[in-house]
Amino acid sequence: MPDLTHFDEQGASRMVDIGEKPVTHRMARASGIVRMQAATRRLILDRQLAKGDVLEVARLAGIMAAKRTGDLIPLCHPLPLDAVSIAFSEVGEDALRIEATVEVTAKTGVEMEALMAVSVAALTVYDMCKSVDRAMRVECVQLEEKSGGRSGHFVRE
Amino acid sequence: MPDLTHFDEQGASRMVDIGEKPVTHRMARASGIVRMQAATRRLILDRQLAKGDVLEVARLAGIMAAKRTGDLIPLCHPLPLDAVSIAFSEVGEDALRIEATVEVTAKTGVEMEALMAVSVAALTVYDMCKSVDRAMRVECVQLEEKSGGRSGHFVRE
Amino acid sequence: MPDLTHFDEQGASRMVDIGEKPVTHRMARASGIVRMQAATRRLILDRQLAKGDVLEVARLAGIMAAKRTGDLIPLCHPLPLDAVSIAFSEVGEDALRIEATVEVTAKTGVEMEALMAVSVAALTVYDMCKSVDRAMRVECVQLEEKSGGRSGHFVRE
Amino acid sequence: MPDLTHFDEQGASRMVDIGEKPVTHRMARASGIVRMQAATRRLILDRQLAKGDVLEVARLAGIMAAKRTGDLIPLCHPLPLDAVSIAFSEVGEDALRIEATVEVTAKTGVEMEALMAVSVAALTVYDMCKSVDRAMRVECVQLEEKSGGRSGHFVRE
Amino acid sequence: MPDLTHFDEQGASRMVDIGEKPVTHRMARASGIVRMQAATRRLILDRQLAKGDVLEVARLAGIMAAKRTGDLIPLCHPLPLDAVSIAFSEVGEDALRIEATVEVTAKTGVEMEALMAVSVAALTVYDMCKSVDRAMRVECVQLEEKSGGRSGHFVRE
Amino acid sequence: MPDLTHFDEQGASRMVDIGEKPVTHRMARASGIVRMQAATRRLILDRQLAKGDVLEVARLAGIMAAKRTGDLIPLCHPLPLDAVSIAFSEVGEDALRIEATVEVTAKTGVEMEALMAVSVAALTVYDMCKSVDRAMRVECVQLEEKSGGRSGHFVRE
Repeated sequence: MPDLTHFDEQGASRMVDIGEKPVTHRMARASGIVRMQAATRRLILDRQLAKGDVLEVARLAGIMAAKRTGDLIPLCHPLPLDAVSIAFSEVGEDALRIEATVEVTAKTGVEMEALMAVSVAALTVYDMCKSVDRAMRVECVQLEEKSGGRSGHFVRE
Repeated sequence: MPDLTHFDEQGASRMVDIGEKPVTHRMARASGIVRMQAATRRLILDRQLAKGDVLEVARLAGIMAAKRTGDLIPLCHPLPLDAVSIAFSEVGEDALRIEATVEVTAKTGVEMEALMAVSVAALTVYDMCKSVDRAMRVECVQLEEKSGGRSGHFVRE
Repeated sequence: MPDLTHFDEQGASRMVDIGEKPVTHRMARASGIVRMQAATRRLILDRQLAKGDVLEVARLAGIMAAKRTGDLIPLCHPLPLDAVSIAFSEVGEDALRIEATVEVTAKTGVEMEALMAVSVAALTVYDMCKSVDRAMRVECVQLEEKSGGRSGHFVRE
Repeated sequence: MPDLTHFDEQGASRMVDIGEKPVTHRMARASGIVRMQAATRRLILDRQLAKGDVLEVARLAGIMAAKRTGDLIPLCHPLPLDAVSIAFSEVGEDALRIEATVEVTAKTGVEMEALMAVSVAALTVYDMCKSVDRAMRVECVQLEEKSGGRSGHFVRE
Repeated sequence: MPDLTHFDEQGASRMVDIGEKPVTHRMARASGIVRMQAATRRLILDRQLAKGDVLEVARLAGIMAAKRTGDLIPLCHPLPLDAVSIAFSEVGEDALRIEATVEVTAKTGVEMEALMAVSVAALTVYDMCKSVDRAMRVECVQLEEKSGGRSGHFVRE
Repeated sequence: MPDLTHFDEQGASRMVDIGEKPVTHRMARASGIVRMQAATRRLILDRQLAKGDVLEVARLAGIMAAKRTGDLIPLCHPLPLDAVSIAFSEVGEDALRIEATVEVTAKTGVEMEALMAVSVAALTVYDMCKSVDRAMRVECVQLEEKSGGRSGHFVRE
């Protein structure tokens, strides 16, 4: 099995040296699901009923969190992101799917940024709705696609 | 169905007024699972093989993220946390369970802090191991227990 | 004229000692105006035309900035805010008024937090609309009301 | 009227994709005014009387805020700034003018950084002097000049 | 030898639980020295020659860093500081001494905040003067005094 | 003596313009010492006795602080770091030496980032061990080597 690159030969954690890697255009797409009561989802999707736009608050939180990934994940490189977008869709009767797409022109990829955007957007949905449905759950936060780096084009099967 | 408290009558988002709520001791416990290849988990748990301590890096990231919850979740109140701890355990052959416990003496609870600690610890495990297992997945991020507020003692069934 | 309390006898800046001040409930209300083309304002207020909700983005930015006032204003005390809300209203044909209200139970007041919320909300309106109206202007950012401290109830005349 | 670029076709906010834009040298200059009592301004400008240097504190706050614009304005891109400077001048008897100039070599401009520097410098002047003049007001925060991007050279008339 | 309280029985790091500790007034005083060429110190102390006020920039940086200690030291509790001040004095011909005093009313002390204020003020002196004296050195960063907690009054001998 | 570049002709602080400087690969290496009781050092180095890994916590704190140097040192440029690593070694019987190496491909160097990494790692060692040895001291924080910029290769003699 290959080594964990975030540790050196003595086991010390480090921010891996990307100085020699080429600057390329890179993209990552991640997704996650917020499972909730069907009534909670109806409430979220009916802006009349909800009075406000839960998903827009979650979207902004996710975009802002993507920009702070380097502050939150200890060994991540800080990156000047080119683009971040977040989309929501319905899954069955009782879940929302969140998908974040992040792009950068840099020496390393943005999969952590995409996963962070999904996670913080999901937690914000939870925060906005926890007064009506405390048992919501975040599921299946995962990388969907990644392109532009040395490791080639990854697409989850 | 009750209202979403984060919106006012016109649907404007707001940070809810907690000025009148009593200061009490509050606790929240949240959990999540990182699903991975069995070989990846063996690598993480064998510090000899991994060369470094993946879980300690993830634990610190989770603790630090708990302290920044008010910066990341738009309508969360900033809180002076009393305690944060994070524990890892094995689930089946191919998953790690993360549990975060947060305590505070304040006017509002810390469930978002506990969920944030779990999420960022999980993403840090992903970051540390993504070079060997890109398809890892974060699952079941959920509140387990919550005590100390007006809404009473919540324990997930 | 009284002294500037943020300097000591030698002229060194300092974070003023509030250790002896009583903890009381404090409120501050600040306002500001964004002057723009009438067409820009019509665009903002017609969510159909704008496609999105400029004011909700600005509101969230203002609320989040209020929480970070202690990080941005060098000699401000960090405060655990109880409540933040932001309201928009129309002024004439070509301006939007922003009003922020912040509350805290603490040893010092929150007028800087209210002014910061207004300023960052105003700049976010600018950012969202600058592609159609680069000459927008932020005007009249000022304290409207302040209560709860030793200096008494301030209401702008 | 052109579209607001920060929303997509469905009205979702997003960080606009600048991946294809060329890296060029860009500059933005913004200004603002702090209106105050004439006595307050005399106090600020007479370092003997004030005991400390209000404007230097405000200048540093403005420069540091410019660096954090991407953290504060939700859909702004994080940018590696080349230069930030802030100048103060007198206006009439009762006002100070603040002008910030920001430069970058990047795919997008720095007008938000310049406006943020002015706003936070102005609020810091307020904070430093509020114990003697609570009714100060920030006025006319606006872009003065902008160069280097696709939209050409903007100079306020 | 007593245990390191930041680790639990299994060696996991944690933010120690201070929930049961009484809220008391606490103070910490720390100091440090910046050793430099005598000519560099003359330059710093002669504001005419230096053109600007190196020590005021360093002071503000130190105060702002004290407020962010909980963000920087992984297991520190975030604290609502009551007061921060920083003083400079001359030592011999070629050194500046920095002393920071921090106060809080809380369940835990502020020695890390005082040490952080000294360290960041010292590094800022370095940054301001490195173009003329790259070999400056920060020395003797240490706690001088601490009062208000269970461990009693500490004064360095 | 040359001028302090962080001040302009009027003595105003500023972030120096690096727009015209070439992008080159740059490296900086800094070191510092934490002086402590010999028993404290034995405790740190014996992970069995300490129960946890003090140095790994300090290492992560130092790496994360390096990434935030531009937020902490007022006139530093924000930089997209390529690599950060931190090593510990023993000095005599009662001290630990910390060495940080930072690399970047940018228009300005990373000596402040290396010094910040050393300082925050040192303070974290202090924080982890202060319950057993309050009199620990940080010494000799200094630049060891710097390469890649116009000022040539600096190696401390």
